[in-house]
Amino acid sequence: MHEGKLTRGQLQAWALNRYYYQSIIPIKDAIILSRAPDPSFRRVWRKRIVDHDGQDGDDQRNGGILRWIKLAEATGLARDRVISTDEVLPATRFIGNEYLNLVRTRPFLECVASSLTELFSRDLIALRMEKMRQHYPWLASALDYFEARLTEAPEDAAFAIQYVFDHAATRADQERAIQALRDKCDILWAQLDALYFAYVEPGWPPPGAFRIEAEATPRVENAGGNRA
Amino acid sequence: MHEGKLTRGQLQAWALNRYYYQSIIPIKDAIILSRAPDPSFRRVWRKRIVDHDGQDGDDQRNGGILRWIKLAEATGLARDRVISTDEVLPATRFIGNEYLNLVRTRPFLECVASSLTELFSRDLIALRMEKMRQHYPWLASALDYFEARLTEAPEDAAFAIQYVFDHAATRADQERAIQALRDKCDILWAQLDALYFAYVEPGWPPPGAFRIEAEATPRVENAGGNRA
Repeated sequence: MHEGKLTRGQLQAWALNRYYYQSIIPIKDAIILSRAPDPSFRRVWRKRIVDHDGQDGDDQRNGGILRWIKLAEATGLARDRVISTDEVLPATRFIGNEYLNLVRTRPFLECVASSLTELFSRDLIALRMEKMRQHYPWLASALDYFEARLTEAPEDAAFAIQYVFDHAATRADQERAIQALRDKCDILWAQLDALYFAYVEPGWPPPGAFRIEAEATPRVENAGGNRA
Repeated sequence: MHEGKLTRGQLQAWALNRYYYQSIIPIKDAIILSRAPDPSFRRVWRKRIVDHDGQDGDDQRNGGILRWIKLAEATGLARDRVISTDEVLPATRFIGNEYLNLVRTRPFLECVASSLTELFSRDLIALRMEKMRQHYPWLASALDYFEARLTEAPEDAAFAIQYVFDHAATRADQERAIQALRDKCDILWAQLDALYFAYVEPGWPPPGAFRIEAEATPRVENAGGNRA
């Protein structure tokens, strides 16, 4: 993506699949909220849900999910097609759901620690925005999602790292916090691997999943091919 | 696999990862058992757990899990390495866990229907045994797992299809049963795609996952390569 090697069709596949992940983030945060006994923790954490779902009324503002839809539309996908999630890879769904499993079943400290991937997201997002403007200028007007995350993510991460620092009292707790962060990295990594398999190399989307349209010919030789 | 194109290392990766799936099958069946209100249903369904976990005592017999370990050992893997599941792909774990999600959360009829992939397994297993003996003769003495499934799977499938036939009263029920079977197919398919990505093409196992040893050079050109 950062080297400008993706076709429009591949960016569509990415935006469509990543939408599923975006759509479950507020559910993930609501599960964490539901497990938090401390109102002061909940008051801070609920910001994450507002950031993603937006807010009705006088102070109406769009949330991250709507901003992601704007990005997906800019790749050329119809809004309803994105929102339906009918065409996401089954693997995207299964791997994303593992994040929900994690926050439902693991100790609370580990759930908070699993969010710490955001410690690293501001620099990555800044780089991504620069590279997208450079290589995919037709997407430049639809980067509001990333723009908002530049400030939201560091705020969220600062609270979460402080919480983990204050509550991981023993070496064993600290190791469990690190493991939760590793597990979250595995979830993000596996999602990208599934996308790469389906839309880059070997380029075999499974039955029912989104297929890149012929006009958006992939640059990688065998992407978009069919299983023999 | 059926064309004899897999290296020993690739067969190890398959056996190691598939072990994770084998290991959760009795858990899956125990969840179904726990949701079945009818003792006569439970009496039949518990056979599946016995088949996989085996039985202590006078009538001691090995279950499918031990038979699978025997197969994995025949590929050259140490037993403890297989049982630990430390080196399975995160995707194998996440996608396998989706099967547990399915039987925990979906209507009971759909849980039973999801097992119907076994309607098709006898012929596939018979073919697989023939092809394995032909192409990987060094595995021929370790096919007990498949041998047992030749009779177990059709018995299980006959009961399950009759149950679905008797209980899917409306067209809507029937459609839901079919969808559950499709969803199960997606789970099996996604597992194989993740294996193919990691160990065939592009051949990029994620951090921490099993790596094919150098001596077992993959025959597919770029398998076993590293992410640049």
